[in-house]
Amino acid sequence: MRTYLDCLPCFLSQALRAARNATRDEAMIKRVLDEVGRMLADIPLESTPPESGRRIYQKVAEITGNRDPFREAKEESTREALVLYPFLKERVEASQDRLATAVRVAIAGNVIDFGPNRAFDLREEIDAAIEKEAAIWDYPSFREAVGEADEILYLGDNAGECVFDRVLIEELNRPVIYAVREVPVINDATREDAVAAGVDKAARIISSGTDAPGTILGTCSSEFKEIYQQAGCIISKGQGNYEALSNETRPIFFLLKTKCRVIADDIGVCEGDIVLKKI
Amino acid sequence: MRTYLDCLPCFLSQALRAARNATRDEAMIKRVLDEVGRMLADIPLESTPPESGRRIYQKVAEITGNRDPFREAKEESTREALVLYPFLKERVEASQDRLATAVRVAIAGNVIDFGPNRAFDLREEIDAAIEKEAAIWDYPSFREAVGEADEILYLGDNAGECVFDRVLIEELNRPVIYAVREVPVINDATREDAVAAGVDKAARIISSGTDAPGTILGTCSSEFKEIYQQAGCIISKGQGNYEALSNETRPIFFLLKTKCRVIADDIGVCEGDIVLKKI
Repeated sequence: MRTYLDCLPCFLSQALRAARNATRDEAMIKRVLDEVGRMLADIPLESTPPESGRRIYQKVAEITGNRDPFREAKEESTREALVLYPFLKERVEASQDRLATAVRVAIAGNVIDFGPNRAFDLREEIDAAIEKEAAIWDYPSFREAVGEADEILYLGDNAGECVFDRVLIEELNRPVIYAVREVPVINDATREDAVAAGVDKAARIISSGTDAPGTILGTCSSEFKEIYQQAGCIISKGQGNYEALSNETRPIFFLLKTKCRVIADDIGVCEGDIVLKKI
Repeated sequence: MRTYLDCLPCFLSQALRAARNATRDEAMIKRVLDEVGRMLADIPLESTPPESGRRIYQKVAEITGNRDPFREAKEESTREALVLYPFLKERVEASQDRLATAVRVAIAGNVIDFGPNRAFDLREEIDAAIEKEAAIWDYPSFREAVGEADEILYLGDNAGECVFDRVLIEELNRPVIYAVREVPVINDATREDAVAAGVDKAARIISSGTDAPGTILGTCSSEFKEIYQQAGCIISKGQGNYEALSNETRPIFFLLKTKCRVIADDIGVCEGDIVLKKI
């Protein structure tokens, strides 16, 4: 996906949020915004948003000295998601089409916003997400692709959400390679987060090699790119991976909830919609 | 009011909105955002937001060549507000305390968002705004100050809203000087807009001399500043005037609805609250 004009003020808002998580020093946060403001002129509208996100979060780390401002938030969301794991499994067990429900569970993990003591409320939100009609639902192709694949590449998104991905992986009945970011960026899952979520019990975890908040191939390791090129079926979770890969030609299924109007417009759905979309 | 960190991404969003109103040329709009991004580093957090707003809207005009991107929107909102004028007068006529209701009508004018064919819905919104309990309601002091004033200085805000201001002015029973911006900036009222709203029938209209989206005294004419210094009672409408004057010491009554969390926090109320606040 290209960068839209609306992405530019959003980059600044994201930098502010990350910088606030990284430090309480207002002058330092102002410096981050000044620098990110200067960077806007170097962002071509033809680039994908995570390419800029990468440089912006690097700048936040460089100025604040904090390379992982969302670490605590990530650990907390994994703890909360693990509490929900038996509940998610029950939902799949009780359903008529286990795979379809597991896809919906995985998307639900992309929907929810973790926070202190929200585990109880979250059950209602998850049920709502499971029952919400999808705006795009390429499920027949998805089931077929999964059934035919020798190996599935699953591109992870946020920490916490990994627990929900694990529920889907456990229904795929195929060898799965689960790709995470190489280093912390926003609340995206790294190997540590995926292991804490128990994904290692169901899949082989690899790093994509990227430090961007999305699987930008140009920033990925050659090991990852080889797996990507050979995978018979690729499952891509979340907005960042969509932004990075929407113009690719591999057999990718995008699973996400559109949490931003620009991405929703790019896909051709409404903000808040649930999507299982084959490339 | 000082500039808060949250104002910085908002400046960029405002520039985008104004530039989109000024032109459809995406490359030109990108140039506006690039330039405004560069300007952020020169914005001290000690300055008031309209000081930066002024420079940002100047930049939009300079790059797009359009000095009045909201002209049509302003004319339309005045037309719609004039349709509502008899309805507003009825509300005042039917009330127990005409002055208090007129204050609420004036604030309602600050609340509403004009749009095509919304005149009918607006009646409901206006009634809701009239009935909504104010978070700060310094009305006894206001009534006293109005009663004692030889002359009242009324600082206008947006076009369209002028019609609502006129309803309040007509209940003040004092000579009123109505100050508008010297030149177009966003959808703020200029002399032309105030006259179109019929404010000239109830008050003497003057320009404050400013080209900022708020009455920043340093940018005002000496004629205006003299009136400002001598006024026994000053009524200040809207957020921009609050941001510019909240640290002043003249007897100012701020009438506004808080449409932004940062300003609400600065005042100590919630976003969406209605305020009649004596300085």
